[in-house]
Amino acid sequence: MIHAVILAGGVGSRFWPRSRKHKPKQMLNIFGKNSLIQETISRISSLAPPEQTLIVTTRDLVKSIHQQLPDLKADNFLVEPVGRNTAPCIGLAAMKLMEQDPEGYMVVLPADHLISDREPFIACLKQALDTARQDDSLVTIGIQPTHPETGYGYIQYHPGRRKPSGAYEVVTFAEKPNYATAVRFLASGDFLWNSGMFIWSVRRILAEIESSMPELYAALMEIQRLKGYEVEQFTNLYSGIRSISVDYGIMERASNVAVVKAAFSWTDIGNWAEVYRLSPKDDQGNVNLNGHVLVDARNCYIDSPDRLVALVGVQDLVVINTGDALLICHRDHAQDVKKAVEYMERHQMDKYL
Amino acid sequence: MIHAVILAGGVGSRFWPRSRKHKPKQMLNIFGKNSLIQETISRISSLAPPEQTLIVTTRDLVKSIHQQLPDLKADNFLVEPVGRNTAPCIGLAAMKLMEQDPEGYMVVLPADHLISDREPFIACLKQALDTARQDDSLVTIGIQPTHPETGYGYIQYHPGRRKPSGAYEVVTFAEKPNYATAVRFLASGDFLWNSGMFIWSVRRILAEIESSMPELYAALMEIQRLKGYEVEQFTNLYSGIRSISVDYGIMERASNVAVVKAAFSWTDIGNWAEVYRLSPKDDQGNVNLNGHVLVDARNCYIDSPDRLVALVGVQDLVVINTGDALLICHRDHAQDVKKAVEYMERHQMDKYL
Repeated sequence: MIHAVILAGGVGSRFWPRSRKHKPKQMLNIFGKNSLIQETISRISSLAPPEQTLIVTTRDLVKSIHQQLPDLKADNFLVEPVGRNTAPCIGLAAMKLMEQDPEGYMVVLPADHLISDREPFIACLKQALDTARQDDSLVTIGIQPTHPETGYGYIQYHPGRRKPSGAYEVVTFAEKPNYATAVRFLASGDFLWNSGMFIWSVRRILAEIESSMPELYAALMEIQRLKGYEVEQFTNLYSGIRSISVDYGIMERASNVAVVKAAFSWTDIGNWAEVYRLSPKDDQGNVNLNGHVLVDARNCYIDSPDRLVALVGVQDLVVINTGDALLICHRDHAQDVKKAVEYMERHQMDKYL
Repeated sequence: MIHAVILAGGVGSRFWPRSRKHKPKQMLNIFGKNSLIQETISRISSLAPPEQTLIVTTRDLVKSIHQQLPDLKADNFLVEPVGRNTAPCIGLAAMKLMEQDPEGYMVVLPADHLISDREPFIACLKQALDTARQDDSLVTIGIQPTHPETGYGYIQYHPGRRKPSGAYEVVTFAEKPNYATAVRFLASGDFLWNSGMFIWSVRRILAEIESSMPELYAALMEIQRLKGYEVEQFTNLYSGIRSISVDYGIMERASNVAVVKAAFSWTDIGNWAEVYRLSPKDDQGNVNLNGHVLVDARNCYIDSPDRLVALVGVQDLVVINTGDALLICHRDHAQDVKKAVEYMERHQMDKYL
């Protein structure tokens, strides 16, 4: 059976004030009426229906995510006591799936990505599943880069070593590069963006964890022996695990890793400037979501559903007006929204976090 | 007796969204806790107590102004059916005062100016009253210019022709100049800003209206004959009067006009950029009235009492956030706020006007 494992523990602060501690990016409906996680669940449902879906998230978020996905059952949620990056939570999901379906396959998907074309997306996942079935590869989805992005990790592949399924052999994984390196990656032609999606058999990923991360494997085995009421022990064991990504902890060290090139449009929208970039604009380059008053305003993004905004003589601004807080940010400083959130954390402005 | 005549019919839209149709600039407490008209009434009270005060305003505003000044009586208000600039409303006030105190003097003051020093202000008015009493001059208060302002009218005076009271003879009045002309006025040394304050006897100003603006005088005499219940006739007569300023309609044509140089700080705060200029600032040049979150923000003015604002990577912005509307304006475009108001008028966005 195919199991969708949705990684939904993210705490991104770069979409403040729309995103909050209890409403991170994956729960926002930045585009359209559904939230990113609702879209993610819906998009994968033809391959893995809700009963074969496992949402991995944190205690802080599980209740509100469940409210957005009322069709799911408690059994569809796997709750981390604390966040420990992707390797431990993928290990936890694999351990749970091993109990119920040891011959199963996992499709690991981040909950907060933007993918508009469903059919080519499902086709790529099917190709990745074929690859994993054929030779038990660890398979990833790679995105053809369009610019020297420094916000994503990269995957180098062998253009000449193609598997029967159409997937390519992977040479290596690279962390988020600096700009010069990103330019070199783009020019080389054999680097793809790392989408953070993984496809593999439950048995294979657990074997890789056992060999590459024996401490994590040991902790998972201890957790497996706990009773359901041993919450405190679970918390202690999980908290003791080293925080590490699956890319770094497993993929970089594993052999027989393959990548399927995505044939669908994809973005890991990282901040408001990217939302602006992806939105339809008027003649002056403005994204005016609620019919606000613009006088000599250019290249601005305005989202203020409950209060009229008038922009006069400004440009390149992002304006996000929510019930209790207003962000006014230069588009070139969209990454610095997290600095405002950090300031509020330092000053105990909890009601705005 | 001395009568204060407060001109409070202004409809300024450049302080939107704080200023609205029913709450123009004179009713705002831009600095401190009192509104500009409350400060104006209080400032003049040692010279003209409330019972000798006449507030000239429009039907739209009289109720809310009266609410801000509960000590005044209905008799202290003179209500224009429609706005017709300063000459007609000063004529109306003079006509009314002629009936009750034909030997009286008028001190005409705009309701919306900012004057911080009370004693020198009263001293200047006393000097102006002395001048008017000595030779029945029409007296104005002139402000020593500090920069080539294009938003004020100017008064040219004879530095060599000083009256016993200390006032100077006026050569001419000039409308708001263009920038080159304003620079020339400033360099010449014998131009002052026109403060819009006037001091004269009731008898003299009515005589000037009769000779310079006979049509206005005739209309005022007709209005004088009306009964109190002849509201419709009053409206028709007043509406038929030509809209014209006292500067242009009377002062430019009159002889024996004098100016007292102001020895107090004065500003006719015209827009939010001037409010910024007059406000105390922090190290980054920001006016942060409510403890908002500033990340790489410089030279901004933020007034948002009920909603947190975070500014990230922006400069030279004015941010005015009220219960139903938000203005974000570049400081260099503060004059264009009225364009936003005009847009809302054209689009029948009445609830925001």
